[in-house]
Amino acid sequence: MVLSFLKTVKSRIPTDLAPDVSRPTVGIIGGLGRMGRWFAKFFQDAGFPVLISDMQTELRPEDLARQCQVIILSLPMQVFPKVVAKLGPIIPENSFLTDLCSLKQSQVACMLECACCEIAGTHPLFGPVEKSMKGRRVALCKGRGKRWFTWWEGLLRKHGAVTSVVSPEEHDRTMAWTQALNHFILLCLGKAMDDHGIDPKQIMALATPSFEQQMEILARLYHQDPELYATIQMSNPYTDGVLETFSQHGANLRKIIKERDRKAFIELFEEVQDLGHTVLLSKKNYVDSR
Amino acid sequence: MVLSFLKTVKSRIPTDLAPDVSRPTVGIIGGLGRMGRWFAKFFQDAGFPVLISDMQTELRPEDLARQCQVIILSLPMQVFPKVVAKLGPIIPENSFLTDLCSLKQSQVACMLECACCEIAGTHPLFGPVEKSMKGRRVALCKGRGKRWFTWWEGLLRKHGAVTSVVSPEEHDRTMAWTQALNHFILLCLGKAMDDHGIDPKQIMALATPSFEQQMEILARLYHQDPELYATIQMSNPYTDGVLETFSQHGANLRKIIKERDRKAFIELFEEVQDLGHTVLLSKKNYVDSR
Repeated sequence: MVLSFLKTVKSRIPTDLAPDVSRPTVGIIGGLGRMGRWFAKFFQDAGFPVLISDMQTELRPEDLARQCQVIILSLPMQVFPKVVAKLGPIIPENSFLTDLCSLKQSQVACMLECACCEIAGTHPLFGPVEKSMKGRRVALCKGRGKRWFTWWEGLLRKHGAVTSVVSPEEHDRTMAWTQALNHFILLCLGKAMDDHGIDPKQIMALATPSFEQQMEILARLYHQDPELYATIQMSNPYTDGVLETFSQHGANLRKIIKERDRKAFIELFEEVQDLGHTVLLSKKNYVDSR
Repeated sequence: MVLSFLKTVKSRIPTDLAPDVSRPTVGIIGGLGRMGRWFAKFFQDAGFPVLISDMQTELRPEDLARQCQVIILSLPMQVFPKVVAKLGPIIPENSFLTDLCSLKQSQVACMLECACCEIAGTHPLFGPVEKSMKGRRVALCKGRGKRWFTWWEGLLRKHGAVTSVVSPEEHDRTMAWTQALNHFILLCLGKAMDDHGIDPKQIMALATPSFEQQMEILARLYHQDPELYATIQMSNPYTDGVLETFSQHGANLRKIIKERDRKAFIELFEEVQDLGHTVLLSKKNYVDSR
């Protein structure tokens, strides 16, 4: 399986004018959640009128949907389909609907099915602990319509985001690596340490720079939402295949080590070094493109 | 298994005076290898007279051993026992012998058995790509004698190293985590990506900050020596147990994900979050102590 990404648009995109209004009212459904608050602040700081609705607000999602030109769904993935089914028919055709879910295939399909307005899928590839959007990646999936999409991508870029336009399928396939497998590895590492009674403070005293970074990644989990991470593992249709491949290579590499097969180990190591070299080059390109 | 570390000495250690000489001649055997060169430069910059021997030098290890008060073995672990057996009996009792191997149990035992001089095991927990010793960790194992050990630890600290004194057994147990398991994970991740034809450049376009860091760790392998990494996996007696535990947790977590057991997933996630919190605190302590 080779991932083929749509080319990221590098041209200047006009950002000041929304399709029909110069400063649309933005509504965030789930606006009291962590990402909801983050985006509410983002839009407020950017000078947009913002309405939010959540379980505790007087403003109901239906009223918000009628009053806003831009509607952002910041919802747990478990309740997402139900809310979209209810709101979709209310949203006027000339409005814009997008979501912030960590998965995109069923989410974009669901929005397209339930609503007639312009639609895009958005996945901010960062959490609410980040201070700003500058240099952070955002995945965008085209749904329906170009005008609002152009406005939305332009706004994100204007505020420093590095956007990538991908199909929902490509997005979810990639997330099986960058999220599901990555979290899987960290969880297994943490559980194994727990099991052996390893005290992180003590092990850090003998950490190499590489393991120190690994521990820093593990520590990032402290800020995350277990419910979201469960859904990322359990709802992505590509997770199982990726975890299977990883586990197979684990079994294979353990065999190589047990059999003291230095030749096989070194071949494998050099293959991964080649990949590492490509990462170094891509990192350079990414930094250069900012 | 709980690791119990010897307390790192925090008091000021006199560094200017070696036991018998104020500025001993330092000999590096394997001084043309990457770490050998690194330490040759380190001692030269610190103002010590330095001799090196290697396969291509006219100076033979035996002659070096007779002329130097401090002898550093910077050798591949495969040839280490043979060289120590040959040189050990030549080294005068009042000299200091240390090594730079990534494992310490059999290495320190070998030096103690073959030589009568003062002995310590040294593991610089960084590679030759690092510019200086400042802030880098160094593990030290006591072998025989206190005077040279005090001088050696003091010198490393004076140049900014963060030293930890551990027993050879504790050292190797810890390396099974910080080196063997860490490299194992990175190799399985890289091989799995290769297998699925993932282009790192493309996947990086959709990387979260956590996965971006994971790719950066993987990329570090590019600078490393496959032979050394093979030995780290295959010669550490604690590797197998650690890899086994990690693999078992992999199998267990895959079962939880397949069965959509959200409750079990969230419990496991929260346990690892607690560990992550301890890492954050230990990182803070480490930074504060520098």
